[in-house]
Amino acid sequence: MSRVYNFSAGPAVLPEEVLKEAAAEMLDYNGTGMSVMEMSHRSKAFEEIIQTAEQDIRDLLKIPDNYKVLFLQGGAHQQFAAVPLNLFKNRVGDYIITGQWAKKAWKEAKLYGTANAIASSEDKTFSYIPDCSDLPVDENADYVYICENNTIYGTKFHTLPNTKGKTLVSDVSSCFLSEPMDVSKYGVIYGGVQKNIGPAGVVIVIIREDLIREDVLPETPTIMRYDVQAKAGSLYNTPPCYGIYICGKVFKWLKKQGGLEAMKERNERKAKILYDYLDESKLFHGTVRKEDRSIMNVPFVTGDKELDTLFVKEAEAAGFVNLKGHRTVGGMRASIYNAMPEEGVVKLVEFMKKFEAEHADA
Amino acid sequence: MSRVYNFSAGPAVLPEEVLKEAAAEMLDYNGTGMSVMEMSHRSKAFEEIIQTAEQDIRDLLKIPDNYKVLFLQGGAHQQFAAVPLNLFKNRVGDYIITGQWAKKAWKEAKLYGTANAIASSEDKTFSYIPDCSDLPVDENADYVYICENNTIYGTKFHTLPNTKGKTLVSDVSSCFLSEPMDVSKYGVIYGGVQKNIGPAGVVIVIIREDLIREDVLPETPTIMRYDVQAKAGSLYNTPPCYGIYICGKVFKWLKKQGGLEAMKERNERKAKILYDYLDESKLFHGTVRKEDRSIMNVPFVTGDKELDTLFVKEAEAAGFVNLKGHRTVGGMRASIYNAMPEEGVVKLVEFMKKFEAEHADA
Repeated sequence: MSRVYNFSAGPAVLPEEVLKEAAAEMLDYNGTGMSVMEMSHRSKAFEEIIQTAEQDIRDLLKIPDNYKVLFLQGGAHQQFAAVPLNLFKNRVGDYIITGQWAKKAWKEAKLYGTANAIASSEDKTFSYIPDCSDLPVDENADYVYICENNTIYGTKFHTLPNTKGKTLVSDVSSCFLSEPMDVSKYGVIYGGVQKNIGPAGVVIVIIREDLIREDVLPETPTIMRYDVQAKAGSLYNTPPCYGIYICGKVFKWLKKQGGLEAMKERNERKAKILYDYLDESKLFHGTVRKEDRSIMNVPFVTGDKELDTLFVKEAEAAGFVNLKGHRTVGGMRASIYNAMPEEGVVKLVEFMKKFEAEHADA
Repeated sequence: MSRVYNFSAGPAVLPEEVLKEAAAEMLDYNGTGMSVMEMSHRSKAFEEIIQTAEQDIRDLLKIPDNYKVLFLQGGAHQQFAAVPLNLFKNRVGDYIITGQWAKKAWKEAKLYGTANAIASSEDKTFSYIPDCSDLPVDENADYVYICENNTIYGTKFHTLPNTKGKTLVSDVSSCFLSEPMDVSKYGVIYGGVQKNIGPAGVVIVIIREDLIREDVLPETPTIMRYDVQAKAGSLYNTPPCYGIYICGKVFKWLKKQGGLEAMKERNERKAKILYDYLDESKLFHGTVRKEDRSIMNVPFVTGDKELDTLFVKEAEAAGFVNLKGHRTVGGMRASIYNAMPEEGVVKLVEFMKKFEAEHADA
């Protein structure tokens, strides 16, 4: 068996240690005589799994006590609807459009009220984060919405927007647990887990308690109600148990790595290796404004489509897979999430240097 | 490692063979160098997984070509809302209330229009299926809704209701793939997979194409739209990939067992062993009207709550786990889904006989 270096944007690489544990426990979890897949979500064994997972993510992110943590289904797409359904009082939301996912969330909110695009970087293919220090925030806005790390474009909010006192809602799917966050600055943080935390099919919502209301919009499907899920400890209906179990293992792994301070240091070091090379290379260059670069998703191009295609192909043959960029940006993208070892980035850069040398005239 | 006999109502027992394969492929699926959990849902390897799964369930259920198969998230609870959101034209639905899940679906539909309870067996704790040969179907009803097998109460529709020409919608969560079905009699069939097919977090929807409309109710969250998911081949957003992969393995396992005719025979034989004993026992008796008995969920009681508790406890110690009945029915319930081997039922009955002998005076 030979593992590849998997630069997929999501679902994405998981720690090998976690996968090995999961494989070993597949037929008998912790002496229960069954797999976690076969376990009632009301059983003591599963209760312990979900409660431990919650405590561990609380520890990792230092989540204040007045925030609830929910493990839900439907991914970020479902939250695009759940956010306005649960948070709209005035039926007004302000959106900062920094990519395809923020745009989808903005369009979805329009189903339920007024959604304002108060800033956008679409003019330059979302290659930067707009200045958000003094935006025209609607006085009736129920919240200001951002997508904090933009998977496709490789940008990241390094400074949070000035919401002028409004609740901040953030989709952190592609930077979740990659570095510490000050949770108290947000009203709602949510993320699909399939990039940095676990298998697709789980979305984690962290929400300040005063935002959890019973008088949600009347058209809200019950399963999307934060109040219902919060009251039931995420067990209003059968949750994606196996996914939550894997997330829990990843949380333990993150603690063992030294927590989010250590991950930030490691992720910045990994990203620097790649960005430093992109900045000096004569063949490859990054596509994002330097100050807005993500440390999770690194898009780059040669400027020659055929050469891009050749690079992706040769990289794959050499064991560096899923480097093809998103169709809207083209070129390449290396997603270097928590579970990508530094060695993978070092070897990728070595391979890029070799490719550059071979194509010096291109 | 010692596996127990797991009579859980769901999530529930899976074929050991499937779990062993999944464990073996955890770090490297089919030479890809990665786990299915780490795989892009747009990759060739995953496309093959989901397409093969779809073809296999089509083969098993002999699904006509004018039906779509969708692999979605949110379980049956999400479908409680999705059904009216997608199917309401007149905003009228007729519901047959045979248990807690049908009742929840009925209440959810009321968020979006008129939901009529046209029959109910609540008067006798849902211990039977009402006569559905001549119900007061609303002339404006967009559909007639049933929960075909009632997990908590152990009843099953052995004859489909006379819908008087209206579309039949059926929640088959707890009898999915336990026997052949005539799909052409239904407009929509859906089921959470966590009872008979796979891990919690996947719901399969089988829907006749003419019922898939773009003019769904305007308040429908995009992720719940059947038209959007059908057009995208269930890949509108990242699907619960790992769960779908396990479902696919179970479909292959079912084919190897001889398909659904063979499963029906086996399931009827298993159920008969348990029901025959319940009918002759002086201590234990079933709680359901004989002609409405489910072959998947078998509730039974001693009539003495303390003795029930003792039985559940001693059974667990002997390796027969999750036999406690649902709190609304009390007593015991043995869920004997596809993956429960006949041996498990035989040994359970032996254990019950022994318990009966020891408590003959009770």
